[in-house]
Amino acid sequence: MLQLDDVLAARDRVDDVARHTPLDYSNTFSAMTGAEVHLKHECFQRTGSFKIRGATNRIRTLTDEEQAAGVVTASAGNHAQGVALAASRSDVDAKVVMPETAPISKRKATQSYGAEVVLRGVDYDEAQEFAHHLEAEEGRTYVHAFDDEYIMAGQGTIGLEITDTLPEVDTVVVPIGGGGLISGIATAVKAHDPDIRVVGVQAEGASSVAGALEKGQPTAVDSVDTIADGIAVRKVGEQTFPVVQERVDEVVTVSDDEIATAVVLLLERGKTLAEGAGAVPLAALLEGKFDYETDEVVAPVLSGGNIDLNLLSTVIMRGLVDQGRYVKVRTVLKDRPGALNHLLDVVAEERANIYAIQHDRTNRDIAMNATEVELDLETHDADHVDRLLERIREEGFEVTVLNGPRQYQ
Amino acid sequence: MLQLDDVLAARDRVDDVARHTPLDYSNTFSAMTGAEVHLKHECFQRTGSFKIRGATNRIRTLTDEEQAAGVVTASAGNHAQGVALAASRSDVDAKVVMPETAPISKRKATQSYGAEVVLRGVDYDEAQEFAHHLEAEEGRTYVHAFDDEYIMAGQGTIGLEITDTLPEVDTVVVPIGGGGLISGIATAVKAHDPDIRVVGVQAEGASSVAGALEKGQPTAVDSVDTIADGIAVRKVGEQTFPVVQERVDEVVTVSDDEIATAVVLLLERGKTLAEGAGAVPLAALLEGKFDYETDEVVAPVLSGGNIDLNLLSTVIMRGLVDQGRYVKVRTVLKDRPGALNHLLDVVAEERANIYAIQHDRTNRDIAMNATEVELDLETHDADHVDRLLERIREEGFEVTVLNGPRQYQ
Repeated sequence: MLQLDDVLAARDRVDDVARHTPLDYSNTFSAMTGAEVHLKHECFQRTGSFKIRGATNRIRTLTDEEQAAGVVTASAGNHAQGVALAASRSDVDAKVVMPETAPISKRKATQSYGAEVVLRGVDYDEAQEFAHHLEAEEGRTYVHAFDDEYIMAGQGTIGLEITDTLPEVDTVVVPIGGGGLISGIATAVKAHDPDIRVVGVQAEGASSVAGALEKGQPTAVDSVDTIADGIAVRKVGEQTFPVVQERVDEVVTVSDDEIATAVVLLLERGKTLAEGAGAVPLAALLEGKFDYETDEVVAPVLSGGNIDLNLLSTVIMRGLVDQGRYVKVRTVLKDRPGALNHLLDVVAEERANIYAIQHDRTNRDIAMNATEVELDLETHDADHVDRLLERIREEGFEVTVLNGPRQYQ
Repeated sequence: MLQLDDVLAARDRVDDVARHTPLDYSNTFSAMTGAEVHLKHECFQRTGSFKIRGATNRIRTLTDEEQAAGVVTASAGNHAQGVALAASRSDVDAKVVMPETAPISKRKATQSYGAEVVLRGVDYDEAQEFAHHLEAEEGRTYVHAFDDEYIMAGQGTIGLEITDTLPEVDTVVVPIGGGGLISGIATAVKAHDPDIRVVGVQAEGASSVAGALEKGQPTAVDSVDTIADGIAVRKVGEQTFPVVQERVDEVVTVSDDEIATAVVLLLERGKTLAEGAGAVPLAALLEGKFDYETDEVVAPVLSGGNIDLNLLSTVIMRGLVDQGRYVKVRTVLKDRPGALNHLLDVVAEERANIYAIQHDRTNRDIAMNATEVELDLETHDADHVDRLLERIREEGFEVTVLNGPRQYQ
């Protein structure tokens, strides 16, 4: 099983490639939670995520012959960029296979770090199959995204940075997909002090670990569906699982709405871009998914910031809706003069701001003498939404929430 | 005129309220420009912008009687939040007047920092008028957003942090709206070394300074229109202007598209959220709006990160379009079987990704046997857009760019 010495050795190998990322006390999130929150900003890591650490450790432990033959992997995510930069910084040739539908931003980033991108297959499985074909055909080493002790050891260097900077840390909170990151970090911090608690966080839509812990072996979920694509993994690794079993104290899950809210708060209050997977530890803390004491020293690991900017717009909207800061409602107006004015007056009096109005007199489902109106509104919070709806109803309008905070979903 | 001693005195007053923000070397932007780029991350300042510095210096230099009577200002922007926190940290009562249409996020933030928010008036001018009414009525001190030596001195503490951390800096690049920030910074850095160049950057849609420098006195532009709302000021200040005249070496302007591209790059590559006004210095550097040598040490001041999240979505889209990474085109298909397939095959062969297709057979402007199709596409860059369009035309389709990179606008 992975040991502290493996992580210490990894640190020497990755030191000139990976940044020591900041671990910053957060006024905002400490005030919001009552804990003493220090954010590990791994989103500021080179390539935008922690993957550079493990990939560098893996590539630098290959034999000279293996290095000369090059490496290959399949990924359209952070691992692709990590392998690309790790390989080019060690003068090793790298091919990264992506499905043909991979976002252009991911292809470009991976190329810019020095790897050859091969587009093959309609999905990840087909891309991976072709990567293994290249492994066999060209004698390249396949670099696994998580299930490899050198990868795990490399990711564990984050744990060393945390205990070096903040030796008094009580709880470290870490995303879990395949388990590479948390197994490395848990190994490092438990060696420093076995009383440091390690909490793992999965997305509800990709939560294989709870079942695996119950059965005592890695088990797959049938499918994964989450905005946190960086941890959308069907099955925890064979090598990472025993480490998780032994060194992770708790595993909790968060919903996509909770993740979106955490991404929004990090952006708005922290001016920091985290991807969905990177925000799950903060989401778990904010939602009270694990117990903690007042002033407990908690370090959520913001593991990466590589979110596609188109997806970001969707996530922001979802986070605003979830917090009750953006609501879409539908009303039906009797088609008489002043009805719309009356409605808008009520909205203005309740101090909601109007983003958009859709006014449709052609809808076939409603009476000829009525008009359907949809309003997109900026509101303060869920309570404000409650008050606003109550007031609109008091004024005689029927109103339906199309998109609103949690209690309306 | 403002002197170094004023800034040094300000530093002692603001030290326990304002953060020393990071000044970080950027691999990405150094590689993109050839300069040695160090970003001053004032977007990580408390309240999300530099305004807390000047406001604190102003409030802490009031007499005891003035402090007891409280302060008032009019702002729906960063100054509102700066005054709110500065006042509450000095136990001074603050009222902030905002127009009734102010975004709820700004109201909430200002309240959360301890000020009373008063909604009054349909625009900024009416809000300001009411703030002066409260000044007279309640004996409060009006805190100006920039045209005040204590405000200028407070903002200048950023200059001290830059020369302390990076004494070898060659060029400091600073946004200009009313001139409070740049006059303070220029005073500080020129006192450290008169050879440090200070470049001011305005938004094209709010560029009063060039005219003022020509005429030798502050002159107003008729109207302002820019996504950089933090520097959307019609006229540079009476007190800031002489400092700008004497200590600023160059003033350049950037367009909204250039600003949007800088915001996108900071997010995507730096994982950092800057508002439009905060991104103008980087935009000017990236666009080569001023000359610099290879390896010149350049410090753009990212002055703030308070961008409304709805506006952010718009800015992101605009930045992607400007870079040729998102393009919207319209074609007309002869209405025969397979025409759409043919078009989509061409797009796929050219490795563009499709975001959306609108297919409209009811448009009255085109022939009965034709169909209009609009495609939203993800592309690599402007060259890729060129190749794609050429190829589509070669295949016999007419194509119009609805929304594309600069050369198509």
